[in-house]
Parts: sequence; C-alpha cells; structure tokens
Amino acid sequence: MNILEASLLLRRREISAVELVRRSLEEIERGQARLNSFLTVRAEAALERARRLDQELAAGTLRGPLHGIPVAVKDVFSTRGVRTTCGSLLFADHVPDHDAAVVERLEAAGAVIVGKTGLHELAYGITSSNPHFGAIRNPWNPEHVPGGSSGGSGAAVAARQVFLAMGSDTGGSIRIPAAWCGCVGLKPTTGRVSRYGVMPLDFTLDHMGPLARSVRDAALALNILAGYDPRDPTSSRRAVEDYLPPPEVSLHGVRIGVPANFYFERLDPEAESAARGMVKRAAALGGEIVPVTVPDITALNTLGRVILLAEAAAVLSPYLSDRSKFGADVLALLDQGRLIPAADYINAQRLRRIAWREFAAVWKEADCLVTPTTPIPAPRIGQSHVTLDGAIEDVRLAATRYVRAINVLGLPALSIPCGFSGTGLPLGLQIIGKPFGEALVLRVGAALEDATDYHRRQPPL
Amino acid sequence: MNILEASLLLRRREISAVELVRRSLEEIERGQARLNSFLTVRAEAALERARRLDQELAAGTLRGPLHGIPVAVKDVFSTRGVRTTCGSLLFADHVPDHDAAVVERLEAAGAVIVGKTGLHELAYGITSSNPHFGAIRNPWNPEHVPGGSSGGSGAAVAARQVFLAMGSDTGGSIRIPAAWCGCVGLKPTTGRVSRYGVMPLDFTLDHMGPLARSVRDAALALNILAGYDPRDPTSSRRAVEDYLPPPEVSLHGVRIGVPANFYFERLDPEAESAARGMVKRAAALGGEIVPVTVPDITALNTLGRVILLAEAAAVLSPYLSDRSKFGADVLALLDQGRLIPAADYINAQRLRRIAWREFAAVWKEADCLVTPTTPIPAPRIGQSHVTLDGAIEDVRLAATRYVRAINVLGLPALSIPCGFSGTGLPLGLQIIGKPFGEALVLRVGAALEDATDYHRRQPPL
Repeated sequence: MNILEASLLLRRREISAVELVRRSLEEIERGQARLNSFLTVRAEAALERARRLDQELAAGTLRGPLHGIPVAVKDVFSTRGVRTTCGSLLFADHVPDHDAAVVERLEAAGAVIVGKTGLHELAYGITSSNPHFGAIRNPWNPEHVPGGSSGGSGAAVAARQVFLAMGSDTGGSIRIPAAWCGCVGLKPTTGRVSRYGVMPLDFTLDHMGPLARSVRDAALALNILAGYDPRDPTSSRRAVEDYLPPPEVSLHGVRIGVPANFYFERLDPEAESAARGMVKRAAALGGEIVPVTVPDITALNTLGRVILLAEAAAVLSPYLSDRSKFGADVLALLDQGRLIPAADYINAQRLRRIAWREFAAVWKEADCLVTPTTPIPAPRIGQSHVTLDGAIEDVRLAATRYVRAINVLGLPALSIPCGFSGTGLPLGLQIIGKPFGEALVLRVGAALEDATDYHRRQPPL
Repeated sequence: MNILEASLLLRRREISAVELVRRSLEEIERGQARLNSFLTVRAEAALERARRLDQELAAGTLRGPLHGIPVAVKDVFSTRGVRTTCGSLLFADHVPDHDAAVVERLEAAGAVIVGKTGLHELAYGITSSNPHFGAIRNPWNPEHVPGGSSGGSGAAVAARQVFLAMGSDTGGSIRIPAAWCGCVGLKPTTGRVSRYGVMPLDFTLDHMGPLARSVRDAALALNILAGYDPRDPTSSRRAVEDYLPPPEVSLHGVRIGVPANFYFERLDPEAESAARGMVKRAAALGGEIVPVTVPDITALNTLGRVILLAEAAAVLSPYLSDRSKFGADVLALLDQGRLIPAADYINAQRLRRIAWREFAAVWKEADCLVTPTTPIPAPRIGQSHVTLDGAIEDVRLAATRYVRAINVLGLPALSIPCGFSGTGLPLGLQIIGKPFGEALVLRVGAALEDATDYHRRQPPL
C-alpha cells in the first residue's frame, strides 16, 4: 500500500488514521529489536494526533495529501519538545524549542510523525553503525548495514514501519540507504527543500529529501516539501512545480544519458547488470538511450571530500574539547578536516563552480543520466573494505563513489530499486537530473518503476 | 577644475579634449620622476582618442558625462592590448585580451584612459612602496607614502595628473590613499560596481571604486560605474540611483552617527581634531549628531584579516613556486595565509554573516557614521611602526584599523579631505553608509565639502 492508496482508503473511511498509526507503531515495536531503526517513538502523541485527524476528516476537513499518514524523520530534524540527538552523545539530551521547516510542512500536510529514525553518528558516514545508539540493521539481512547516514529512515521505510521517512544527504546519505534497503530516495536540487532547523554537517553539500516506498510517494512528498524559505539562506525562490508523475508515463522523446566513462567501471557485476537491465527497459519504454562522456567525477569526488572535511570540522571543532563524545570514525574525519588549509578549501570551492559550468554541457546531450547508485550492495556490519576488479577499496569510498559528486554539483538525483544481488540484497539505480529537473527525474523513475516490481518486494520478517 | 566644469568648457568648445589630455600627459611627465604614480602611460593612444572625441563633439555627439575627460585606472584593471602588471613581477609582461567592466563603462561614457597607475605589489598592502617598480610618493611630501594599495591613483588625482582614477579596496585600499593624498575616495557597497576583469586579491572583500578631486566627481563616476554585470557572480541586480548630490545640500533631518567607542580611540590628536571639526560642521549644517555604540570592530578586523590572508593565499599560492617573484612583505602575508586552517576560515565567514546582522542595529539610530579614515597621516617611506597613546603599533595595522571592518560588512564608505597635520599632510574623514546607501553618503560628503576648502588645496610642486 502506498500513500495515495492509503489516503484514498482514509477518505472513504475504510480505514482510520488511528488504525494506520497503530499499525505503524506495531511494526516499529516488532522490528525495533531486530533493526534498531528508531531512536525515539512518539506513540502517545502520534495516536492523539491521529484521533484528532480522524475527527477532522469526519467533519470534512482534509489538511493535505498526508492527512493521517504515519511518517518518520531522521533525528537531525529539530522537533519542538522532542529530543533530537543527531545520533551523537553531544546532543543526547537536546530538546529543540522549534520545528525544522520540513517538520512544519509535513505536519501542515496532515502527516503524523510517529518517531525519529536513527542514523550514522552526526550524519557523518555511510554505515549507520552508531557507536552510541547501536548499529542499525538492514531489513533484508540483519548482518548487513542499511547504509547511511539516513540508515534508520531507509530501514523504517523498507520494513513498512512508516510510509515515508525524511533523510538528509551530504554525500549520498539518502540515496545509499535507499539503494541498500530497496526503497526510493530523492536528493533534490540545492535550495529546493529548506534546511532550516536541521543540524548542519556541511553548508555547501547538505540536502534534505524523502525516502519512500514508491517514486510517486517521493514525488508527493516533494510537492509538500519544496518551496522558498527565508530562514534558509540557500533556499531558492524558483517556483515549484507539480512533481507527481501521471498514472501512465511514456519515455518517448526523453534522452536518457548513460555514462560511457566512470560510472560503469570497477563495480560489482550484479550491480552493473541490474543497472544495465534498467537501461534496456528505458529503451523498451521509448526512451532514447544516449551514451555520454561525463566530466572528471573523481576530481569532483575529491572536491566534495575536501569541502565536507573542512566544513564539518568548522561546525564540530568547537565540540572537540571532549573527544570521548565521538566515535572513532567520526573523530578521524574531524581530525583530518582540521588539517585542511583554508587556501585548499577556497580553491575547491572555486573549482566547484568551474565544474558546475563544465557539467552543464552534459545537459545539451541528455535530459537525465542513469547510473548504478552504488558499485556494491550493502556490506556486512563491521566490513571495512571491498574488493572490486581485484582492487581493495575502503567501503566508504566505494559506497560514495557514484553519488558524492552529485552533491558537489547540487543536482537532483533519485535512487530506485533495480534488482537484487544473488545474496538477496537490494540494488539501486540513480537517475540524475539537471538543476531543478526533479519533475523529469521522477517521471523517468515512475516509468521504470511501473515496468518492474522490485519496489513491491518486501524484506523477510 | 572638476569634471563637471571641464565638461561644460568642452561642450562650449572653450577647451578641447586634446588640450585636456595634453595637459594631463604634461602633468604626468612632469610629476613622474618625483611621484612615480604611473606604471604605463598611453600618450599616443590617448591623444588619438581625444582627437576622435573632439571630432564627435564638433559633430554634436556626446558619448557621456566623461566625454573627453582624462582618467587613469589602477594597474589591476585589465586593459585590452595594454600591459596590466598588478604591480607584480608575475604579470610584468601580461597583456590582457579583454577590458575590465570598469574600463568598458568609463570608455563608453567618453573617458580617455591616459594610463595605468602604480600600486602596492599585487594590491596587497598599504604603502605602495613597490619593490619591483619603485616606491610611489606622496605629492604633499615625497618622503612619505601616498597610502595603498591604490597609491598611484591617489597621487595622480592629488597631483592633478588626471581628473579621476579608479582604485580597488580590499581593506582600505581606496580610502587610505584618498585620505593620505588629500582627495576623495569611494568604496561602494559589495555588488554595486562590477569586478569583472580585475585580478582578484580576495573574493569576499574586493571592491572597485573611484578616487576623485571632489565628492561630486566621485558621484558622477559612480553613476557611470554602478550596475548589474552578469560576468561578476557577486554583482547586484539592485536598481541604480542618481548618485549626484544637488548643487545645494542640506543636512536637515540626516542622523549622523558618531561612534562613541573604538573610532576616536588611540589616534593622532590632529586626526581626531580634524574629524571632530567635521562633526561640528555637520551639526552647523543641520545634521542631527547621534552618538552610537558600534559592535566589536576589533573582531570584525580580525575576521577581515583571516579571510584576506586565506583568500589571497588561495589566489596566489599557485605562483609561490618561484619565491623570488615576490617582495618580502607580500611573501610573508602569503606564507601566513597558507597556514590558516579551513575550519577557521569557514567560521570567520559564518561570523561575518552574524556580524552583518548585528551591525544592522546601528542603522536604526543613524543614517550614516562618520569616523576618521585613518588614525594617522601618511607615514614616511620605510616607516614600519607608529606610536599612538604610548603604544607602538604596526603601520599596516594602524592604517587599516578604521577601514578594514567596512569591507567585511560590505558597506559603502567615502573618504573626504578634512584637514591637515601640522607637518602639512592631509587627513581624511570616513563616511559610512548602510548597504546601497551611496546616495546619502555622497550627499553628506558634498555638504561637508561645500562648507570647507580642504579639497581645493593643491600639493606643492
């Protein structure tokens, strides 16, 4: 059942918001010991709100497209009166006095926020093996990570604990858990969704977006989330669109770029064949497949790492006086970040703007790019390296190899399920769009999703 | 004679452009050995252009308010086909293939660019004692510096070699030479005048503006220079105004803020009494004198130094492979800049935005601020320290103490002559405005200038 279906049942009074929320709380309760996807569950408050929403619906009031729908937000989004930890001991008891813009918008649309999902410590990593709050586990195989940093959101959506969960994405943190948990994740264009009320990790690279059960659910969420917010200085005044793809989507006339360099190199053969299978489907659906040469993604990834190391150190170095408050991996990244010279950081920012202009040439040839989301399916908890094409690679570098540059460029990117590894772990396809090209990206995603059933498969209980 | 007067004579055919340019070239020729204000003189090209402008005028065509007026530009502004050194051995033979936006606008308004003025090496300092092209000298006393970095422009305007000279100001580089040479200098609001085609020293702090013989000449120049330029990513789309003050200016109803802290502390008593004299005149002209407390300027100056050290190192570190190409003071600044950690730079930028909001409170109480431009008159060439209130202070720190923070805030600021030291050296008054408040700043400057004759005095030959 997706959001549109649930919403229809609600409006027909064939189900109540209380019933939806109760089921959600039951799934959370049932899955928590196995998955550890939630840091905070607001059972009483959620049921109370659901009761009010049911009364309103009975009286003919529909707050919006999420009226009565149980959702979750990653624990980096400030929630007034509700603990917001950022997955860190620094904020273990932090109770904000305001809501993040994203929380305001979800609630204004009628959503019931049932809880706060777990994450990689300080959203700074891709495993979500949190040293303070415990490792989050992949619903498809609890020996494996869900991906990160929005690992709790990915696991909660995949395990059908909620319909929708908000994530944040600085170097792949929405798309990686979406790919590895087998759900849909959307990182919008820089400036499209307000960052107000979110603990920053990186001023340049942070993006807020939904993880959902289907492309249309993600599009529905973007319809609610997108728009100008004067409280976020990076927020765009550009007009929003209706992002929801129509029920029947054709790809005729859509130029689907397939990178001829970098993106199909040095990856798990199963990840490659799953992604190539989707390219074939796109062609069968009428899409025009265009091989494109992309600018130097390795350089962009390096810029992204320099900018992230430096900006995260700027945000967090005031807290380094007590090193015991940090996990080893995050501490190492902060220590590295403090050693980046300002001149290198400034030149990375200058090169970023040049790269952005260079990359614009791609959009003369293609309307979107499709790539694997990650070169590998979810690694095991504790696994530090993978071997690809005979070369040993750090798991973090491998996981972020195809996604990090897209944050540097600020482009919209969607990850959709595109198959499974032989061991039963999900694989993701990344669809990258031009700036503010979310509508087209979602349309392509919906066409491919309609032609496949990967997103309907559910993890074992 | 100011620009408006010269322009009137030109239009009445009582003087020709050729005559004005010839006089300008004679003054440059006569003063060069004593002042060293020019790096390049374009005698033939300037006379040729003047002849063409005379013909056009005879045919009834007036290109603009600077038709036939001899001007100069600091040698950081790119001039197509004309060497642009930046006062550095790195660019000693650099001939750009394009004009800076400022050069385009001056020429479109009919100006005759007679040459390129000298400067502190790479515009990175306040003495203009250039190790490669020789020290520039103060027209009022050649044993003293003209100030910098736009020292050649200040000397050329003060010595009546040109009517107008363009400067750039990163931490006082227009206002300091204006004050020390006894002319008018305007640093506009960030984004008001295009930086396209100027060798950058600092992306955050660089500003382009005129040095002129009078406030109205500077205003006339701003009318020509101001406006949006898509080639400069920091350029503002805000509409321009007519900046020229009317012939009779009243200060009735203008709230003139006089800082009660920081700005009248630890300065030469003559500089203080000259500035206070101007405050009295402002009151006599009807201005409402308002004592105001300004936010922590020392902290803003520190932010400015951190940002400048880091950004200049980012721009110039690629050239550091040959250290013999740099003077000792600039090399020391670049070496310091390379040691600034990115995290400190990023936090300086964050604090800058906070300071900007804090400073906005000042504008609730006052329409402008008046301060001394510098705590001291021009030091001797080679002088490294001054003693103020019994404390020894580095000349660079003293010279920039009252001006640097205004670059950090991006506010418009005008320096006008306000008196002379007992040794016959000029002193300047700084008038600081709110963002895009150039018109009011120029109006206040014009009122004070009309009531005094400091700007009419000419340096000894």
